[in-house]
Amino acid sequence: MDRLQALISPRTVALIGASENTNKLTARPMSFLKSHGFTGDIFPVNPNHDMINGSRAYKSVEDIPAKIDFAYIMVGTAHVISALEDCARAKVKVVSILADGFSEKNEAGRRLQAKVVEIAKEAGIFLLGPNSMGVVDTRSRFSCTTNAAFRTGQLESGRYAVISQSGSLIGTLLSRGNERGVNFCTYISVGNEACVGVGDIGSLLLNDNHIQGFILFLETVRDPTGLAQFARRAFTEGKPVIAYMVGQSDEAQALAVSHTGAMVGNIQAIKAYFKSVGISQVEQFDAILEAPAVLDLRNQIQKRSKKVTVVSTTGGGGAMVIDQLALRGVEIAPCPETVRASLSAKNISIGTSKLVDVTLAGTKYEVMKAVISEIIEHEDTGIVLVAIGSSAQFNPDLAVSPIIDAVEMASSKAAPVLGFPLPHAISSMQKLEASGVPTFRTVESCADCVSLLTRNSPPTPIVEQRLEPSSSALISSANSGTLNEIESSTILRSLGLRYPNQYKVATNADLSSMRLKYPVVAKLVSRDLVHKTEMGAIRTDIQNKFELKDAISEMLENLSKSHIDIKVDEVLVQEMENGVGEALIGFTRDPVVGPIVTVAAGGILAEVYKDYSVHPAPVSIETAQQMIQNILGFEPMRGYRGMPKGDLDALAKCISLVSKLALNSDIAEAEINPIIVKREGCGATCVDALVRKY
Amino acid sequence: MDRLQALISPRTVALIGASENTNKLTARPMSFLKSHGFTGDIFPVNPNHDMINGSRAYKSVEDIPAKIDFAYIMVGTAHVISALEDCARAKVKVVSILADGFSEKNEAGRRLQAKVVEIAKEAGIFLLGPNSMGVVDTRSRFSCTTNAAFRTGQLESGRYAVISQSGSLIGTLLSRGNERGVNFCTYISVGNEACVGVGDIGSLLLNDNHIQGFILFLETVRDPTGLAQFARRAFTEGKPVIAYMVGQSDEAQALAVSHTGAMVGNIQAIKAYFKSVGISQVEQFDAILEAPAVLDLRNQIQKRSKKVTVVSTTGGGGAMVIDQLALRGVEIAPCPETVRASLSAKNISIGTSKLVDVTLAGTKYEVMKAVISEIIEHEDTGIVLVAIGSSAQFNPDLAVSPIIDAVEMASSKAAPVLGFPLPHAISSMQKLEASGVPTFRTVESCADCVSLLTRNSPPTPIVEQRLEPSSSALISSANSGTLNEIESSTILRSLGLRYPNQYKVATNADLSSMRLKYPVVAKLVSRDLVHKTEMGAIRTDIQNKFELKDAISEMLENLSKSHIDIKVDEVLVQEMENGVGEALIGFTRDPVVGPIVTVAAGGILAEVYKDYSVHPAPVSIETAQQMIQNILGFEPMRGYRGMPKGDLDALAKCISLVSKLALNSDIAEAEINPIIVKREGCGATCVDALVRKY
Repeated sequence: MDRLQALISPRTVALIGASENTNKLTARPMSFLKSHGFTGDIFPVNPNHDMINGSRAYKSVEDIPAKIDFAYIMVGTAHVISALEDCARAKVKVVSILADGFSEKNEAGRRLQAKVVEIAKEAGIFLLGPNSMGVVDTRSRFSCTTNAAFRTGQLESGRYAVISQSGSLIGTLLSRGNERGVNFCTYISVGNEACVGVGDIGSLLLNDNHIQGFILFLETVRDPTGLAQFARRAFTEGKPVIAYMVGQSDEAQALAVSHTGAMVGNIQAIKAYFKSVGISQVEQFDAILEAPAVLDLRNQIQKRSKKVTVVSTTGGGGAMVIDQLALRGVEIAPCPETVRASLSAKNISIGTSKLVDVTLAGTKYEVMKAVISEIIEHEDTGIVLVAIGSSAQFNPDLAVSPIIDAVEMASSKAAPVLGFPLPHAISSMQKLEASGVPTFRTVESCADCVSLLTRNSPPTPIVEQRLEPSSSALISSANSGTLNEIESSTILRSLGLRYPNQYKVATNADLSSMRLKYPVVAKLVSRDLVHKTEMGAIRTDIQNKFELKDAISEMLENLSKSHIDIKVDEVLVQEMENGVGEALIGFTRDPVVGPIVTVAAGGILAEVYKDYSVHPAPVSIETAQQMIQNILGFEPMRGYRGMPKGDLDALAKCISLVSKLALNSDIAEAEINPIIVKREGCGATCVDALVRKY
Repeated sequence: MDRLQALISPRTVALIGASENTNKLTARPMSFLKSHGFTGDIFPVNPNHDMINGSRAYKSVEDIPAKIDFAYIMVGTAHVISALEDCARAKVKVVSILADGFSEKNEAGRRLQAKVVEIAKEAGIFLLGPNSMGVVDTRSRFSCTTNAAFRTGQLESGRYAVISQSGSLIGTLLSRGNERGVNFCTYISVGNEACVGVGDIGSLLLNDNHIQGFILFLETVRDPTGLAQFARRAFTEGKPVIAYMVGQSDEAQALAVSHTGAMVGNIQAIKAYFKSVGISQVEQFDAILEAPAVLDLRNQIQKRSKKVTVVSTTGGGGAMVIDQLALRGVEIAPCPETVRASLSAKNISIGTSKLVDVTLAGTKYEVMKAVISEIIEHEDTGIVLVAIGSSAQFNPDLAVSPIIDAVEMASSKAAPVLGFPLPHAISSMQKLEASGVPTFRTVESCADCVSLLTRNSPPTPIVEQRLEPSSSALISSANSGTLNEIESSTILRSLGLRYPNQYKVATNADLSSMRLKYPVVAKLVSRDLVHKTEMGAIRTDIQNKFELKDAISEMLENLSKSHIDIKVDEVLVQEMENGVGEALIGFTRDPVVGPIVTVAAGGILAEVYKDYSVHPAPVSIETAQQMIQNILGFEPMRGYRGMPKGDLDALAKCISLVSKLALNSDIAEAEINPIIVKREGCGATCVDALVRKY
């Protein structure tokens, strides 16, 4: 039996700590396994009982006279290690641990978790948890979970697998899915992901050909590399990965830290990470349930327009749908002109606006069928979304049946149709869905799912980059900590970034022989000087050598008065650079998703407006160009109101170069602030930058 | 019978154009009235039939041997006028017109609508529509509508009235409300609002003491004054007005124009208008249904904190709830420390984060009850929201019953409790609601409703302002069109705005005798010069009288070359002003909500970031201060990163003064751009402004 089978379709299951008190959490897995008809062998382990729920109980997993595929350890935190050691000796393949009180709790818990990992790794156990509510696979009726929702009689099987960091949420998805007619194939509660994470499990489940896609409920990302591998492979195999992530707000981020033991990451970085690896993030919780059927249309629209034509039997309802779609950036297409003319010839008026308003011709079977049929067969049509008014509830013959008939009689090349009934109309929704027309319960989830379908973009290609040996050598020869500006600029220049002409001079140097192109800037150089402006260690617009000399001595004198302990290494004299705008490029390692590169417009307002773009590093020039495109503060440099255009292509190249710092694990962070962007075609020049080494 | 009764509880109803073909829309009102048990007299009017659906049909409403309270005109557009004239002669009190093809269609339709209005006004008819799907009142079983959803057997009665610009949506609200256990009292489809609008109907319904609040479904605002009067009175009477407005996106705005014949307004202005008159705008459609029960708690929390304490039996679910609340600006309160200590003494651990996580102590009746009871009785607690995990579905004894018991045993001063079950758990929701615990079906609607409750702010006080007679005189003496800068500044000064020292001089004046404080600015003054900078008609930073003389002649010469047709009236010489920031103040008349005042930070980035604040004019200084507070671009002037603070109080005063232009209907618009904001306490000075008169 291989690992995948042991996880979702084991033949032998040990329930360690199973209770015979049916009010207890620990009695649930046995009860659910039996009630859902699991046909494998169930072995309760409980040293205090001979029988549990009609089955013989064992003192230890080692006493079971069979090789165990899957063990669910449900004992208290203090007894987990011993139970796991038993499993290791018994060569159990897959183990899930229920108890909490590990890394999410405190330092002692972290030590305990490290011990768990050590035992599992040594024994080769595929270990879920701690803090895992177990595993359910509907095909094998393997409902090995403590989640109360699985008491349901309805354990229907679908084609998507749920992988959740919250154990409770697997129950929520089962329950809400049942009500919505959406069923999942497999549910896995990953808990603390001490050994195996969401990505590992996803990668394993990719080997299950029955599974067509994945739903992730996430509170953090613990293994961005593993998750990325899984998501990229899933994309290649045409299996959508849909994620709902808690933690858009600072409050929820803070909570994730205390609740999951996770680190606080940059939520923009996490969003960019998801997008870059091909994970579709939904905003509305309901969209988790409704997105799979919509994303299954990906192939059908591959060669079609990505615009949406909205047909409606309710003006107000149609307007609501268009409003929500447009708010999410979905483009609305009007009815193709030839279709409009053809319908008009049949005496069917659909109005002149972008909404194809069937009410104008009266909601009738023939009208609706003609409208849908003609629109979906037109080559310019991308996706058709029908907002169905009150008739959907009690008069399905008027607007629902014609949709179904139009779809069933459509050619193989026709555009897909989606339906949003305004009233509560379960039966109409079921009929539409049975005919391959996905439907939605809320207008917000509808718009969320449709926007996923229209945006559906591949993962960012993996960037094949290397750091030049010269850069690596410079980095390894530097001391750790924040490098001074000269050291920093040496490394950045080695990457290919441009600096103004600059000269380092001793604090007491004779400047008379220096050939400088004035005006210049003079800065004191010291590892201790991070905020040069605030500390009076920078002077700009120096016009000649006399001013330069004065500036240097004044700066030194002032600094020695106010910050007696700062050791100034040298003075850096730079020729002043003029451009049409400024930008900031940052490189850092996000505690959640790892190395990221950031770009922002220069100046205080970019900061106030939080106007920045972020992406996992390294990035290609093309990705950097997309990052720049997302920044509003660059509008002036894109020629807004006739302003002179800036060399944003050069900026993109710089972003890509800086992002290569990701490839050297000694680099903690770097910031170029500002980089001067010159007129189109004239490049970009770093004028101030710092690099920090671990 | 008064007008209110005639509208919602008529004794005699004429159905003009009623059909005997039950497949037709026009057969529905008769069928619904009979099936829902309306006890008044129903008189079908149809010249082609003697009997309609078992009742005698009349040729005309005038032939009916009874005085008609309510007539529903369902004939085609072309026959509406004649039918309405019959109603006028028959002295019908309330008329609703179904047909479309009026002002929303074209010019001919607008003329037809004007005729409708004329007849109705002359006859004193309270007229709904055209394009109205009718009226339903559940108490009188008066289901006089063509909306298909009213075929339902469930016509339960609630305490809120629905007033909708979309006829289809009254069916959506009935249907979705039924499913959700939320019932409305009255449904009114206002159609085109040719005679009576949402505000008129609301004001009338305010006389119905049974009605406790209002739901508005809006696609535009046609009578901002009438709607404001209604909403302000409703607020005073403690009756919430909850609005869902379509048209957040440009696409939907464009659609509203073609679909309702509405004007395109500024969506920010509409939002500000709603807030200013006390209308609670929901984001999520579901929140229309769920907000009433939540807003009914307004009185209960009047003297309490407006923060929310989130209790949960699911860590992931609790995090979701907190995330959505925090995203909407709701403040989360942790468990009060004394309660934490008291629970701890009972051996109940609730964690250390802001989420009161009951799972840590195990989800048990006693634990949950103790937690809820202690928290709601604490004086610092504002609102308690419980996210209930999987147990809500099949094990309500664990977490649902203790909430109900805690609430039922609570003191009269206890904080209110709301519940969000993560799984699909209808029975638990019904039990909670029956005990006065509002519940929610989606986390987004939950957060939307709770944010309405916590924000619940009174309408902006009506500003009692008057325009000085001197200002009025100046305005009336000006010619229409865009006034030149000197004319504009004269009017703005008369309002109390400050200008720099400035002198108007003839283009060929002798400047030698002028005593100016240099540097100065010189501008050519002409009504034709709107874009002075682009046309080279402004020079700044002029250092002395020689430079001034040269500047003027150069500007005149250049202008005469490039714009030979522009007549320059005078030259304006202004002493230059320095400040710590700039702002823009605008006054305009929004096509939807009427006079509005706008404030934005100066500069191109404020424009790029669409960072402005808008409010119906006139505004008080306090309101202007709140507007300023909403602008991110003023952060530097609020002392961001140690920058010098600006005199934002002076700016607020200027906004209030400019907003008084609303009081003179001759003023079309005005813009001060920029107004220089000086250091705190030093005022604000207009340096460039234009006023346009109708």
